[in-house]
Amino acid sequence: MRGQFGEHFKLTIFGESHGPAIGMVIDGIPAGTAIDEAEIARHMARRAPGNDPTATARKEADHVRIVSGLLGGRATGAPLCGLIENTNTRSGDYAQMSARMRPGHADYAGYVKYRGYNDPRGGGHFSGRLTAPLVFAGSIARQLLQAQGVTLGAHIAAIANVQDARFDPVHVEEETLRGLQAMRFPLLEPQREAAMRAAVEAARAEGDSVGGIIECAAVGVQPGIGSPFFGSLESVAGALAFSVPAVKAVEFGDGMQMAAMRASQANDPMRMADGQVRCLSNHNGGVTGGITNGMPVILRAAVKPTPSIARAQQSVDVRAGEDVTLTVTGRHDPCIVPRAVVVIESILAIALCELMMDDAACSALI
Amino acid sequence: MRGQFGEHFKLTIFGESHGPAIGMVIDGIPAGTAIDEAEIARHMARRAPGNDPTATARKEADHVRIVSGLLGGRATGAPLCGLIENTNTRSGDYAQMSARMRPGHADYAGYVKYRGYNDPRGGGHFSGRLTAPLVFAGSIARQLLQAQGVTLGAHIAAIANVQDARFDPVHVEEETLRGLQAMRFPLLEPQREAAMRAAVEAARAEGDSVGGIIECAAVGVQPGIGSPFFGSLESVAGALAFSVPAVKAVEFGDGMQMAAMRASQANDPMRMADGQVRCLSNHNGGVTGGITNGMPVILRAAVKPTPSIARAQQSVDVRAGEDVTLTVTGRHDPCIVPRAVVVIESILAIALCELMMDDAACSALI
Amino acid sequence: MRGQFGEHFKLTIFGESHGPAIGMVIDGIPAGTAIDEAEIARHMARRAPGNDPTATARKEADHVRIVSGLLGGRATGAPLCGLIENTNTRSGDYAQMSARMRPGHADYAGYVKYRGYNDPRGGGHFSGRLTAPLVFAGSIARQLLQAQGVTLGAHIAAIANVQDARFDPVHVEEETLRGLQAMRFPLLEPQREAAMRAAVEAARAEGDSVGGIIECAAVGVQPGIGSPFFGSLESVAGALAFSVPAVKAVEFGDGMQMAAMRASQANDPMRMADGQVRCLSNHNGGVTGGITNGMPVILRAAVKPTPSIARAQQSVDVRAGEDVTLTVTGRHDPCIVPRAVVVIESILAIALCELMMDDAACSALI
Amino acid sequence: MRGQFGEHFKLTIFGESHGPAIGMVIDGIPAGTAIDEAEIARHMARRAPGNDPTATARKEADHVRIVSGLLGGRATGAPLCGLIENTNTRSGDYAQMSARMRPGHADYAGYVKYRGYNDPRGGGHFSGRLTAPLVFAGSIARQLLQAQGVTLGAHIAAIANVQDARFDPVHVEEETLRGLQAMRFPLLEPQREAAMRAAVEAARAEGDSVGGIIECAAVGVQPGIGSPFFGSLESVAGALAFSVPAVKAVEFGDGMQMAAMRASQANDPMRMADGQVRCLSNHNGGVTGGITNGMPVILRAAVKPTPSIARAQQSVDVRAGEDVTLTVTGRHDPCIVPRAVVVIESILAIALCELMMDDAACSALI
Repeated sequence: MRGQFGEHFKLTIFGESHGPAIGMVIDGIPAGTAIDEAEIARHMARRAPGNDPTATARKEADHVRIVSGLLGGRATGAPLCGLIENTNTRSGDYAQMSARMRPGHADYAGYVKYRGYNDPRGGGHFSGRLTAPLVFAGSIARQLLQAQGVTLGAHIAAIANVQDARFDPVHVEEETLRGLQAMRFPLLEPQREAAMRAAVEAARAEGDSVGGIIECAAVGVQPGIGSPFFGSLESVAGALAFSVPAVKAVEFGDGMQMAAMRASQANDPMRMADGQVRCLSNHNGGVTGGITNGMPVILRAAVKPTPSIARAQQSVDVRAGEDVTLTVTGRHDPCIVPRAVVVIESILAIALCELMMDDAACSALI
Repeated sequence: MRGQFGEHFKLTIFGESHGPAIGMVIDGIPAGTAIDEAEIARHMARRAPGNDPTATARKEADHVRIVSGLLGGRATGAPLCGLIENTNTRSGDYAQMSARMRPGHADYAGYVKYRGYNDPRGGGHFSGRLTAPLVFAGSIARQLLQAQGVTLGAHIAAIANVQDARFDPVHVEEETLRGLQAMRFPLLEPQREAAMRAAVEAARAEGDSVGGIIECAAVGVQPGIGSPFFGSLESVAGALAFSVPAVKAVEFGDGMQMAAMRASQANDPMRMADGQVRCLSNHNGGVTGGITNGMPVILRAAVKPTPSIARAQQSVDVRAGEDVTLTVTGRHDPCIVPRAVVVIESILAIALCELMMDDAACSALI
Repeated sequence: MRGQFGEHFKLTIFGESHGPAIGMVIDGIPAGTAIDEAEIARHMARRAPGNDPTATARKEADHVRIVSGLLGGRATGAPLCGLIENTNTRSGDYAQMSARMRPGHADYAGYVKYRGYNDPRGGGHFSGRLTAPLVFAGSIARQLLQAQGVTLGAHIAAIANVQDARFDPVHVEEETLRGLQAMRFPLLEPQREAAMRAAVEAARAEGDSVGGIIECAAVGVQPGIGSPFFGSLESVAGALAFSVPAVKAVEFGDGMQMAAMRASQANDPMRMADGQVRCLSNHNGGVTGGITNGMPVILRAAVKPTPSIARAQQSVDVRAGEDVTLTVTGRHDPCIVPRAVVVIESILAIALCELMMDDAACSALI
Repeated sequence: MRGQFGEHFKLTIFGESHGPAIGMVIDGIPAGTAIDEAEIARHMARRAPGNDPTATARKEADHVRIVSGLLGGRATGAPLCGLIENTNTRSGDYAQMSARMRPGHADYAGYVKYRGYNDPRGGGHFSGRLTAPLVFAGSIARQLLQAQGVTLGAHIAAIANVQDARFDPVHVEEETLRGLQAMRFPLLEPQREAAMRAAVEAARAEGDSVGGIIECAAVGVQPGIGSPFFGSLESVAGALAFSVPAVKAVEFGDGMQMAAMRASQANDPMRMADGQVRCLSNHNGGVTGGITNGMPVILRAAVKPTPSIARAQQSVDVRAGEDVTLTVTGRHDPCIVPRAVVVIESILAIALCELMMDDAACSALI
């Protein structure tokens, strides 16, 4: 826990938003795995702040320098460390804020936990910038998964009150997922983009921000991945999804809606099809008893509105011990959702890798 | 992962529904902790199937025999193992089903994972019966938390389409939580019970079952518990909540609803009150940046309808490789939600213990 | 750590010498593994105190009741829990001793750690009796290894100053190892038995005890098992060997003697033989860089003399805070070495299983 | 395991000898810990190859660039990552060797494990160069320990057949340990240096190398640190010691010699002294039952002779599948022991930190 995830695909992340560098170490990449750095860069670019008006004005190339674990384009089997130098830091924006707690942020919780020693610049280690290492790790994971026939993709299921369609959970197409990966503003119904952007712009214009929902699917996942209880796919992917800053809800399949369903609706009937067991519906999101059942895996995560807003907010100065009115300056995303799409894909890829490796360990000596 | 949880409050669970016994080992209970076995039994009884018409007709005393780690009513510091013998097993009900996969259950996923060797009787290790060890462990955890001033309680937030009120997340009272613990059908608005029971009965009468939502609160939690990313309270409690069979969605604070909020609504303003930092609202459910902020912790979990139903369902016989029509016999809960309330309390208690111990480790040598 | 070992072959042990029961949970046994309970019982009997004059007069059948994870003689894939009831406890012997610290024992260290709450009866959780769960787990591990062509065996390399021969590290025969397993007093040179027994008897007659050395070999181990650094076979097997009470030194291959060698002697030259790489010598004990090289794995562990002796010893009463003269009563082994042979085999088997499973996880997705 | 150590003081190491950089991430340093970089550099210099004739001619400044977790000289509580760029690499020396397995090295074991994809240049991830991250982490650990009154130091107990005196295990002085830290060739009896250097020079002159023994002590360690079985100080420190390349034997207290002792000699009698329990002897090396007893902790590790030697050796070419005669070129230490002294101190410091943190977690909620 804390800065480390995994028993097999072991991931360590580090770095602070305005420190010298951020990065990650991955231990467990099979020796000989071909690492496609261009493909990694493609996913990194999907997360990186760009010129999109929903995103922060901070520009970071997010180029990853791999300093170990790679030789001649292939994993050596030793831990792979990648570094992303922080180049575009403007700490001055935050200097005056270190004792003034930004509402909705980790500031106060972190101040107490770290007794005032945490790095307050740009949120320090709590920064959404630390999702870059997650995307890097996820990009490696999806290269491993690709070789196993697994493809992942996600879309913006909602921004503010504007909804996209949902995946048809029985018939998610690999091609659809690849298409979504290629979109800067990934939607199943691209005609929703204008309304979503309008909602973001309306919030931004009022010095405010909006949240949204991301829906992610993985297809080609064999049945039998995951374990009951603590090693369930829902536990492992859920834990990773809740690791992403701003995620406040996670659901699989019909999720929250299953509470109001009857089993006769919610149970997914099974039939033989071409010698394989297939479900006729997929209310369970591809997971029953914590284990994949061969249907597409469907995960949704709700992202709260970016807490950094230009509006004046009621807060406290923890050093002075007094109330203050706070206006957050700096460069912030009025809506983080488009950039978070690839992050959610990444954590699902990592979870699947971890559990497929666990399955291999458990099936090894028989 | 798999059968083990935790780095500090280390929990191992074992057992199959119709095997000789189920149980758990907890490693990490501080030596000298007074263990109140009557209090444990009280929580175990809340989960145990009783005479309530929402529950299975299977009767189990769920008496825990502690075989290690306890001497003279106090923890010895060594691993504590408790055993619950399975006394009321009727495996005959399930014998014919082992190759016929029950929809909505782990049967098919487990069959593939364990290559047909898993115990199919009563769901084997996948059984909801394995939540008894979680409640036992949670009962120990809440005794530790009680000494730190933390109290937990939960209620049935919804069954089918019938809703209870929600906690006022700013002003959850310890007394309210204790009151809920004492109710067989815990509700904030007891007048909802009749409608909820009617929904359950309507489903049962049609050979069907219903799901629901459980809302859990913890008060008295100090700020500073949890870590960013993989060790966030949301990650750890979320992972445990998703370990509970039938949970398909988990949210903290306003959860899914935060997606449609603006930050100016969702951010919780802070004020000094009696020398302490307090939030004026609690949309974040007591957790910001993965770390507690001193406000009540609010977790909600959606429970899908019990998949075992009397109605005929489409399924497959994996040995014969052919379609079948399946009618599940045996004794099942038409609604598991009332019994799951204490389970959700338990997993939140375990998560808080784990992270408070982690915090102690991280603050030890300074 | 503490009561748990392993990331793949996950072992949890519990129990106190004079508590109701001791036992273990193993998570990670591949589903479908045939479990030969008679074979387990055979190894348990090798450790159990019997009629041998080197051993304690305490009689325990050490029958293991498996309460989960087993169905029809095969592992179900769920955690396997086994229990050994403590039947022959005579706590009276120890009652007066709880504040009087036995030299050479964990009494004082444990008293401080557990603030006086640890179970002092028979050493509580520190008892050598807790090696029974290790042997049980090791017996499962060796059944898994057997299917991979790996055989383990050990002998008494020394008791007091009497030495047995050493294994020829290049040509250890599987048959030799099986022969050792069948001996109550396993020696490569059985003619040493009389002198060893005489040394034990001489100590016993003087109210004293003796230590010794156990040498263990594993043959048939494929090259490539283990990892550099923290996951080296030496680290993992070494950690497990040092988990065995009374072990104070562990070495691999020529071990301590390598300090005085030159590389031209210590390096094991390699040659091709029947298309396989073989070393002409085996000073490294089958492990180079932490990873097996295909040669027999050789581990030696030094066991200190049983600290419980009848002689008067200088000690302290921690409650009174005063010096005392202590005479330890109760039933003790004047030499634990013969019973510890199977324990050392067991820990090497567990370490090999763990690392072979790790290797499978690391090689899974390529 | 593998590239990660620890549950509390979590250490991840990475890098290859001739890759771009090596380094480590430490998670768990208490926020606010003052990090003395000059002190770290002092210990790094003790390990770094210098002008000493026992060491390799490769020059590396081993300057550590800390890229996260540090702000204003204090730990932020977030993971601390440090990088050491590899500047003086001469891969050409090794290029021709990648299929020709160096005897005594990890080459063949690693070739099999990593299926030929491991980095062969300079031993890759197996290089002794990876002990630099261990020393860095150990330097942080000893700063934490220093604040708890714990001091560590080690000396060359033997090189080849030349012995230094042993620590008086009852009366190790903090001042002695500090003195040893300041010596380039740390000995209790400095007059042994000439004979030791002569032994190294004799080997070097013959294209050979020699091994030795390092003895390490920690004083000021409170009683009660460690756990029985898998979390014993011997297990944890032993595992770390066996993580150090070339270590083939580890012992605590009288270690191997205890095998030939009687309990009446080996048991350490206790007496009250100034209100504290003290042992009159320290054959157990400060650890009984896996837990510290307040006496100095004494660990010894045997280091095998550096396997890289100039002499012709019998080996194989794994690609060609044929026998070869191999002469290792490149720059190597004819004796690694002097540089390994600080490595052994470091691993004992890490183990003590880990277990002191574990103790804090276990004592937290009482």
